[in-house]
Amino acid sequence: MPAFPDAEYNARLTKTRAEMERRKLDVLLITDPANMNYLTGYDAWSFYVPQAVIVPLADEPPIWVGRGMDAPSAVITTSLPKDRILGYADDYVESTTKHPMQYVAAVLADRGHARGRIGVEMDAYYFSARFLEALRESLPGAEFPDAYLLVSWVRTVKSDAEIVVMRQAARILERVMKVAVESVNVGTRECDAAALIAHAQISGTPEFGGDAPAAFPAILSGEKAGTPHSSWSDQPFRADTATCLELSGCRLRYHCAMSRTVYLGRPPDEVNRLAEITREGLGAALDKVHAGAVCEDVEAAWRETIGRAGYVKPSRIGYSIGVNYPPNWADHTASLRPGDKTVMVPNMTFHLMLGMWMEGWGYELSETFRVTEEGHELLADFPQQLFVK
Amino acid sequence: MPAFPDAEYNARLTKTRAEMERRKLDVLLITDPANMNYLTGYDAWSFYVPQAVIVPLADEPPIWVGRGMDAPSAVITTSLPKDRILGYADDYVESTTKHPMQYVAAVLADRGHARGRIGVEMDAYYFSARFLEALRESLPGAEFPDAYLLVSWVRTVKSDAEIVVMRQAARILERVMKVAVESVNVGTRECDAAALIAHAQISGTPEFGGDAPAAFPAILSGEKAGTPHSSWSDQPFRADTATCLELSGCRLRYHCAMSRTVYLGRPPDEVNRLAEITREGLGAALDKVHAGAVCEDVEAAWRETIGRAGYVKPSRIGYSIGVNYPPNWADHTASLRPGDKTVMVPNMTFHLMLGMWMEGWGYELSETFRVTEEGHELLADFPQQLFVK
Repeated sequence: MPAFPDAEYNARLTKTRAEMERRKLDVLLITDPANMNYLTGYDAWSFYVPQAVIVPLADEPPIWVGRGMDAPSAVITTSLPKDRILGYADDYVESTTKHPMQYVAAVLADRGHARGRIGVEMDAYYFSARFLEALRESLPGAEFPDAYLLVSWVRTVKSDAEIVVMRQAARILERVMKVAVESVNVGTRECDAAALIAHAQISGTPEFGGDAPAAFPAILSGEKAGTPHSSWSDQPFRADTATCLELSGCRLRYHCAMSRTVYLGRPPDEVNRLAEITREGLGAALDKVHAGAVCEDVEAAWRETIGRAGYVKPSRIGYSIGVNYPPNWADHTASLRPGDKTVMVPNMTFHLMLGMWMEGWGYELSETFRVTEEGHELLADFPQQLFVK
Repeated sequence: MPAFPDAEYNARLTKTRAEMERRKLDVLLITDPANMNYLTGYDAWSFYVPQAVIVPLADEPPIWVGRGMDAPSAVITTSLPKDRILGYADDYVESTTKHPMQYVAAVLADRGHARGRIGVEMDAYYFSARFLEALRESLPGAEFPDAYLLVSWVRTVKSDAEIVVMRQAARILERVMKVAVESVNVGTRECDAAALIAHAQISGTPEFGGDAPAAFPAILSGEKAGTPHSSWSDQPFRADTATCLELSGCRLRYHCAMSRTVYLGRPPDEVNRLAEITREGLGAALDKVHAGAVCEDVEAAWRETIGRAGYVKPSRIGYSIGVNYPPNWADHTASLRPGDKTVMVPNMTFHLMLGMWMEGWGYELSETFRVTEEGHELLADFPQQLFVK
């Protein structure tokens, strides 16, 4: 059973096909696992081997293609007819003589697309340079226009049903962040805090279990708080350091993300000052959010606020968020940054991520919000403070 | 500080350069995060944006290129000189007008490689079709021969220092599997078992903490035990079902993997029979392992053993394993399957994975082993039985 009713997937396919028609695509070859999930419900940890969902322009069910041993997962998690679920033989896997995209090409040719315009996700994680070469070699009469982010843009505006799931992820996240703040203590190993956080993420709430987030807990302590993506270690947290926590709750692969910072000891004035101005900037940015607002204007309000206090943040302050798989929970579509002219519409969801990575220390504060007609809804409810212990 | 002493990385670079020379490569452009780690020690959850390690054929330090905010992680986790760590500006990220590989191309041109033979990892996870197009457009005078798996093959034979780390991962794994077998009970939600397993993986042992594994726990219960990569749910385990557990211990990104099966209730005869023959086949396969053995012969011994009992397994039974990042802990080099003529040498490490996915149920048993002169060493120590509860 897929996560949503068939009508939800049909609506998504209709929107996708409208965009395919506009771009004169005969067929769409989807390899991004989040987009595969979005269009069919397919869910499995199988994206480490080549797989695809083929969406013909004609109003007929998509076709799932993947490793033979994963075909039962397509039966279990989608409503696709069984004859639209095609597994390739195991000797395609990591072969030196053949490639699964040759099998996909044969499926495309079988369905009459050998000379078609086949949209491909050129810059998706799981669409390597070799994938495209294998397709081109196998289907020399076809064209492969870039359809990267076509589906990702469709899914940037969430349905009400998706918002329900993201609110469930928010309930999980509130527990996760509570556990995280409690777990950071002088002498506790970073890995032990990470373990407690992962437990809270996956266990979820009594009502709904947690899913595997697209990124492991980011626990940035001491000098590592000056950079956003370093790994936890087995060293203990030290007194007189800040620890930044960027975490998510994940439900049915939908994410709600949040960052908070814990200081062990009495924070120096500069930490307090940065915490205060970051919170002020968060408020200024959120005040700009409403249906019709432009993404870059939200960032401008933040930039102006922290600029008055002498701070500069060279990186973007947020991005669209939703259903995703490792390595990233961002939708890769709208960003909150200069030059992004995306106009906000209700049910867009953003992770507004204020990572202030300084020289050898840092401060983080973030929220996931939904755009509403009049303003915004913060999905999770957690104090926006520097946690001093 | 990287995970290993500089001499270890220098030895790895020397082996890599010997192969580059053989293939007449002027420079190697590494984007696989495991290969980046292997050659420099670089470790961060930054592979969701384009990044690379450039290895010139000349005996000089590699160059790290990545998102500006991740450059401090390169400073923290490698011994590279600071002038060999180059961060690109944030407006390259998810840009519609420019691509980080254009920045990488400019670095390559700066170092005299605009007309060189630049090896690229054509089928690596994090080398999209767009990466290659951006490189070709930026460096029209260069050649881009396929160097996929060049470094992966070098790292297929582990050093003694790597084996030490994999044994640490095995100590973690033993705890993980114990927790897993204890956690699967009638009425327990699958997600709660997954949470306890993840906690054990990340917490590790009192001596060494666990790292983020390249794949989340695979917990395959009931009909989902008939397919290897489905997700856990928030449904409870049911009586009279088998649950397959494919798990890893991970230390400094090195993996030791293992599968076991738990049956809740009295197993039917066919489950007992399959468990017995699978264990017999495991023994037959392991008996064939020694320095000089050929990979396909190990699989043949397994196939013959289960074939006598009337079983067939259409998929490979194992693969090289070691340092890896999501989505997969396999090295993607040697496999245990028909046609793989790889000759085993001491300190190769394999996950011998006997996944018997039947129609609506399944059984799994696996071990990670090291090849020795005379035979093999099982890295972890855990009873090879069907666990009946």
